Amino acid sequence: MAEHSLWRFSRAFHRAVNERQMEDLDELIDEEIDWAIYGPIDMFPFFGARRGKAAVLDVIRQIADSVQVHRFNRETLTLDADSAASMLRYSLTSHGSSKPIAVRIAHFAQFRGGRLRSIRVLLDSFDLVEQALGHPIPLPKFGSGA
Amino acid sequence: MAEHSLWRFSRAFHRAVNERQMEDLDELIDEEIDWAIYGPIDMFPFFGARRGKAAVLDVIRQIADSVQVHRFNRETLTLDADSAASMLRYSLTSHGSSKPIAVRIAHFAQFRGGRLRSIRVLLDSFDLVEQALGHPIPLPKFGSGA
Repeated sequence: MAEHSLWRFSRAFHRAVNERQMEDLDELIDEEIDWAIYGPIDMFPFFGARRGKAAVLDVIRQIADSVQVHRFNRETLTLDADSAASMLRYSLTSHGSSKPIAVRIAHFAQFRGGRLRSIRVLLDSFDLVEQALGHPIPLPKFGSGA
Repeated sequence: MAEHSLWRFSRAFHRAVNERQMEDLDELIDEEIDWAIYGPIDMFPFFGARRGKAAVLDVIRQIADSVQVHRFNRETLTLDADSAASMLRYSLTSHGSSKPIAVRIAHFAQFRGGRLRSIRVLLDSFDLVEQALGHPIPLPKFGSGA
């Protein structure tokens, strides 16, 4: 049984982020890739939608310029022939502040001919914002007029 | 081919939230269910972890007391024999304020004998908080000392 495309992509992605080695990634991304990370783009300009391989390689470089991945644990995994969904817990450091950040991420990936064709990433963005700010944001209780 | 357990659970869940009909759900939830919705529990007390059927039925009642589901679109879906992962876009209203809320949600579900055994839900919590507050939260750019 051939290795699922997810594993090759995952290795190449983490190598790109931590070692800025983009070569492996280049051939694992479809020219017409559709990419989105949902979250506040004002704070994290590398979030948002990107279309096409050049734009995606560029945003992965921006991620590499911003954070270092220390560890990740794959908490759930659902694999289909050409798709993969998983939830992961990442331990990161910001290059700007060396601040440790732990964030839970869900990704939904689709592959075509072994290359990443589409990916949607969702994360616990409020938790991430509070960690990046370094303090909690006070919140009212939902439904109590808020 | 038998219907995937996801579809029965999804119908029963939405009926429970919108019509407070809990009967169908009761037999679709494993006694030892492990449940978590990641997000700010100060604002949304029905977020967080729950263990066991009684606690999960109770939290679904709390969700039904808080929101009405108007529409949902399943944007991605990855199905395995006993698991399912999908990303959905929900249009909701808060019962407290009639405020319309649109939120993107990822869920990872595992079934045992046709019953929900475990579910993890991740959502774009910062976007949700801003909508529930009714105003944006100003954010600095990440890495600029923030």
